[in-house]
Amino acid sequence: MTTTLPTNARIDVGALADLLDGRWADIRRRTRNLALEPRYRRTLGLSMAEHRARVREQAQALADSGEVQRAFPSRLGGADNPGGNIAGFEELVVADPSLQIKAGVQWGLFGAAVLHLGTAYHHEEFLPGIMSMAVPGCFAMTETGHGSDVASIGTTATYDADAEEFVIHTPTRSAWKEYIGNAAVDGVAAVVFAQLVTRGVDHGVHAFYVPLRDTAGERDEHGAYPYLPGVGGEDDGLKGGLLGVDNGRLHFDQVRIPRRNLLDKYAEVAADGEYSSPIDSPGRRFFTMLGTLVQGRVSLGGSSVATSKIALSTAIRYGNERRQFTTSDPHTESVILDYGAHQRRLLPLLARTYAAAFLHDTLLERFHGVFSGEHETDADREDLETLAAASKALSTWLALDVVQTSREACGGAGYMAENGLVGLHQDMDVYVTFEGDNTVLLQLVGKRLLTDYGREMATMDVAGAVRYVADRAGDMALHRTPLRRASQSIRDWGSRARSAEELREPATQRELLEDRVEAMVEVIAGKLRAVQKASAAEQAAAFNAHQHELIEAARAHGELMQWEAFTAGIARTSDPTTKQVLTWLRDLFGLATIEKNLAWYLVNGRLSAQRARTVTSYIERLLVRLRPHAEDLVDAFGYSAELIGAPIGTGAEGERQDEAQAYYRELRASGQEPVTEKALRAREKKAARAARAS
Amino acid sequence: MTTTLPTNARIDVGALADLLDGRWADIRRRTRNLALEPRYRRTLGLSMAEHRARVREQAQALADSGEVQRAFPSRLGGADNPGGNIAGFEELVVADPSLQIKAGVQWGLFGAAVLHLGTAYHHEEFLPGIMSMAVPGCFAMTETGHGSDVASIGTTATYDADAEEFVIHTPTRSAWKEYIGNAAVDGVAAVVFAQLVTRGVDHGVHAFYVPLRDTAGERDEHGAYPYLPGVGGEDDGLKGGLLGVDNGRLHFDQVRIPRRNLLDKYAEVAADGEYSSPIDSPGRRFFTMLGTLVQGRVSLGGSSVATSKIALSTAIRYGNERRQFTTSDPHTESVILDYGAHQRRLLPLLARTYAAAFLHDTLLERFHGVFSGEHETDADREDLETLAAASKALSTWLALDVVQTSREACGGAGYMAENGLVGLHQDMDVYVTFEGDNTVLLQLVGKRLLTDYGREMATMDVAGAVRYVADRAGDMALHRTPLRRASQSIRDWGSRARSAEELREPATQRELLEDRVEAMVEVIAGKLRAVQKASAAEQAAAFNAHQHELIEAARAHGELMQWEAFTAGIARTSDPTTKQVLTWLRDLFGLATIEKNLAWYLVNGRLSAQRARTVTSYIERLLVRLRPHAEDLVDAFGYSAELIGAPIGTGAEGERQDEAQAYYRELRASGQEPVTEKALRAREKKAARAARAS
Repeated sequence: MTTTLPTNARIDVGALADLLDGRWADIRRRTRNLALEPRYRRTLGLSMAEHRARVREQAQALADSGEVQRAFPSRLGGADNPGGNIAGFEELVVADPSLQIKAGVQWGLFGAAVLHLGTAYHHEEFLPGIMSMAVPGCFAMTETGHGSDVASIGTTATYDADAEEFVIHTPTRSAWKEYIGNAAVDGVAAVVFAQLVTRGVDHGVHAFYVPLRDTAGERDEHGAYPYLPGVGGEDDGLKGGLLGVDNGRLHFDQVRIPRRNLLDKYAEVAADGEYSSPIDSPGRRFFTMLGTLVQGRVSLGGSSVATSKIALSTAIRYGNERRQFTTSDPHTESVILDYGAHQRRLLPLLARTYAAAFLHDTLLERFHGVFSGEHETDADREDLETLAAASKALSTWLALDVVQTSREACGGAGYMAENGLVGLHQDMDVYVTFEGDNTVLLQLVGKRLLTDYGREMATMDVAGAVRYVADRAGDMALHRTPLRRASQSIRDWGSRARSAEELREPATQRELLEDRVEAMVEVIAGKLRAVQKASAAEQAAAFNAHQHELIEAARAHGELMQWEAFTAGIARTSDPTTKQVLTWLRDLFGLATIEKNLAWYLVNGRLSAQRARTVTSYIERLLVRLRPHAEDLVDAFGYSAELIGAPIGTGAEGERQDEAQAYYRELRASGQEPVTEKALRAREKKAARAARAS
Repeated sequence: MTTTLPTNARIDVGALADLLDGRWADIRRRTRNLALEPRYRRTLGLSMAEHRARVREQAQALADSGEVQRAFPSRLGGADNPGGNIAGFEELVVADPSLQIKAGVQWGLFGAAVLHLGTAYHHEEFLPGIMSMAVPGCFAMTETGHGSDVASIGTTATYDADAEEFVIHTPTRSAWKEYIGNAAVDGVAAVVFAQLVTRGVDHGVHAFYVPLRDTAGERDEHGAYPYLPGVGGEDDGLKGGLLGVDNGRLHFDQVRIPRRNLLDKYAEVAADGEYSSPIDSPGRRFFTMLGTLVQGRVSLGGSSVATSKIALSTAIRYGNERRQFTTSDPHTESVILDYGAHQRRLLPLLARTYAAAFLHDTLLERFHGVFSGEHETDADREDLETLAAASKALSTWLALDVVQTSREACGGAGYMAENGLVGLHQDMDVYVTFEGDNTVLLQLVGKRLLTDYGREMATMDVAGAVRYVADRAGDMALHRTPLRRASQSIRDWGSRARSAEELREPATQRELLEDRVEAMVEVIAGKLRAVQKASAAEQAAAFNAHQHELIEAARAHGELMQWEAFTAGIARTSDPTTKQVLTWLRDLFGLATIEKNLAWYLVNGRLSAQRARTVTSYIERLLVRLRPHAEDLVDAFGYSAELIGAPIGTGAEGERQDEAQAYYRELRASGQEPVTEKALRAREKKAARAARAS
């Protein structure tokens, strides 16, 4: 593969856009372009009440035009298209993240819970109203006292066999449902998660369909119907962003609902109170029910990727026209993207955004496979959940990084609300802690890595362990972590005198990235094994001491998955220039990831000091090569300046500069331009010298 | 020094608070406590217009009560106390950052420009109205086309000797004044920066007092007086935060002002148009004028330190009461600050905040020295500017890091506006790019490091250079960068088998931190020297290629200064427990900084792989030691829960947990507690086994 391109070589933006938009490109583009319609365009400066009202209308418009029901059954007016549905949903972020979350609450959480946890009765009875938004509703899982730890929620649903009803009850203040979208005003029903108690036995968390408000009553001044007896709540009020979504709190005082309102796909309670479930283990049952709700994580990760694309589009377009400080020629200033430091800020983030986009595409295909029933084994579901957790954590944090860096890279203009960046930060901020706090999600991934490691190790005798680790030769699949080479690699890497050239070899990058995940997991496993016969408290302490490392191992695993997906994406391109530029970008992603963890590679003997230096110098060369393609690479994201609507992304800055240059040109030509004091001094000195000389 | 303390040892919070609040503790506390008064308390949910109106009233109240005039001359009602004035100003952030910036615009920029760039006439004529806020005004420096590059602004002030007037003019759209506080509504006058042209010569940027609005006219619906003839402007409208400040744009169409309105401390124009200045060099004159405005950078850095303190107070107090996930005992959950990962997130930021606070204290003393006239040499001013640039960049970025991490560490509660964290992010965001973009400021620092290096090198013959570098033994002063050891150290560090114990030695930490700054500067200087005879374009290209490294060297320099200041602060404590805990915290700061750059130390042979491992393990031990003192360490900041006013910092969470625990205790005692399915299964299995056995 060449390392230079003709200076006028350009990537094939259209073909790259097709690759990035993937299988559901038509739905993506259709939804993205909704942001061009005035009724969906974000209006700045609305009060919270006005923003809520506008988003409510927008969501209704989406429902009326059939844009948001693709995941639901065809027989009810849906399209049985879970993947396409998510693809479209993700693009709502360009219109307004509040609209996206409002839609997510209604169809992605409330509706999806009824669809995936309920059965035919619930589908026929409840889905039509949910799909049309005739019944706006809530997904009432989180409680004030229990965020990430859903298993510990306090709300109870106690079965009363005499009345054939469940009694929903909030026993303490900490068991109030909290941060619930649609709860403050619009929601008239909810899927409520509660501990199911029947015949004196607590069967753990289950989901119930619970009417909240009396739609026959009169709306209050905020537009809310009155609560039904026993139901109460509060408005969460102002948040950091997403002000178009009416989040609130809910509580229940012995609220009775029919027995049939238990969403009973995974557990039934007979009229006499007998409990039964197709899943025997209470733990597995709980995780299966929660697992059906993975689409929230999948779609938030995808929305974050879209957000990163939007922010970089603005920052790179502006960096390509904004001038500041003169270069060697005093009459023209460099555009700021020509500065080395500016490239260092933005281009690695561009590479990470591509990597996140390719992994998300892989994830979305896998999601569609499971939820369309094409690939629906337990292993498929388990892998999907692990990948979704890793991808969501990495993508949402990346988006905050990208948005903040983009805002700073645009200087004061980046701080103006009209340019969109500050609003994106405000709205996306919560994505890193809702639908699974990112640190908790990465711990789940880390535990999965440890479990896989344990499974491998359990199948052989202890004496064979080292040989096993050293000999294993299979490739790492996208979702598994065979721990090959761990002991051998130390021997290998330290002594082999590899050339710097090798860093651009995909095999070298993969090996370095894989090796780190494997070795980190092995070290943690070893430390936990050392205390496996100790007391529970000592085991917990040992786990706690390595919690940070486990999270780092999970992050490294996610980055490896991103690298793999990026590499697979390049294989699907055919235009040679595009392939070359993407390869550089992938190398930048790979090497920047290695550079970030360079100390690990050095301490663990995977890279010599000599080779470590070449990592940074190769990155510098890549930045120079990629710089001319930066704007094409963001154009391929498909978010035009018009779509984004930020005045700084539209060429206005360039026009102002042209006007200024023309003014000074004319002034000079007119002979009216003042001479600068500095030039005058120089002229006088020269004249004095000449006088002395003559 | 011991490495353990009795388990009940507590730091002396009061004494530590005195140390942190420093020389002007009384003013700090007085101003901080203003936030307890209802009239200064931030009201959430105001519209932009309401917020502006409230902040305007608050600023007037500050003026009326004499809280903001301390920097001005005693004879005009001030206190000739530049340091104390800044100390108080910084604390306004706890009331509302918008109030702080409004005050900063009026007294710190507009007023300070008149004070420092004007002379007796301007002081008598303009300061009383500025001090009382009878004349709200603007500091009109930045233009749409020129942010950080002030020397290139386009606005002109052309002297008309016939009329004895300056003509202020905006020649192009890109020369509009932009992001100007007070410009949208309140400002009736401005200090305008413009290129001074007289007798056909452009003498560069100077400052002029320019009336903007006709106070005899009628206010419009926003409360603004009409513009004077030739003046025009626009409202910047919505920003990412600071909505209580009315930023706007200004432009001038041949606006005439009296000759005396030139602020003429550093340059005069006689009636006949003759220009004169006590500073001969136009370049030095420009930097001297700008240098008088350093207080903006000093005070924004200090406000950012205060912000970090506030955010950490909330996050650490909440982390010390919030429980999540069960520990080995299923009935109690750990508080989240007990988790290793949570400590890793928050405690290094606590250490960095202490380091930033100590450096800011040093800076403020130095600022007071220069501006009170106690230490006012050119070298003092130059050092002050360098230190202010480094400290402002590091502190403002730290604040964003701390606020964001604190918000995430508080989960969903962190996203609620009432808890203050999201608002702090929105407001402080712009601090990293205004009053000098942080990346530009770090480049200034880097250039100063290079200049100092060049000065050292210029004094000796080239042949002696290596010996010089190797032999030099003097200590690094706070503000200089002698480049000792650079070549020798590689020999030294790599081979000496130092014990891990040494990492806790201040001398070792200092050596490692110093060494990195020195070696980085030397490498960049060497690369620039290699092209010193090349073309201007090649030289610019070489500089550009090392721009990122220069910024990193400047950051490393700033961190070294923070470490030095922290160490000096510890020397001023007497209570042994406090001294010990602060020493651990300083070690955490030093080692976390070294850990962040561990690859550099390894690649450059300063640390062996073996010793590098001990860096991380020592950090882990420090986290465990510091954890019990975390809440005392934030209490010493002096921001009580009442002052901050965030509901999550008040113990409410602990009360809810107590209520829940009491409920479950009672339920169990009553015999009504349902048995869990899991426990029931276990019981049944046991019974079955017993039945089989009998």
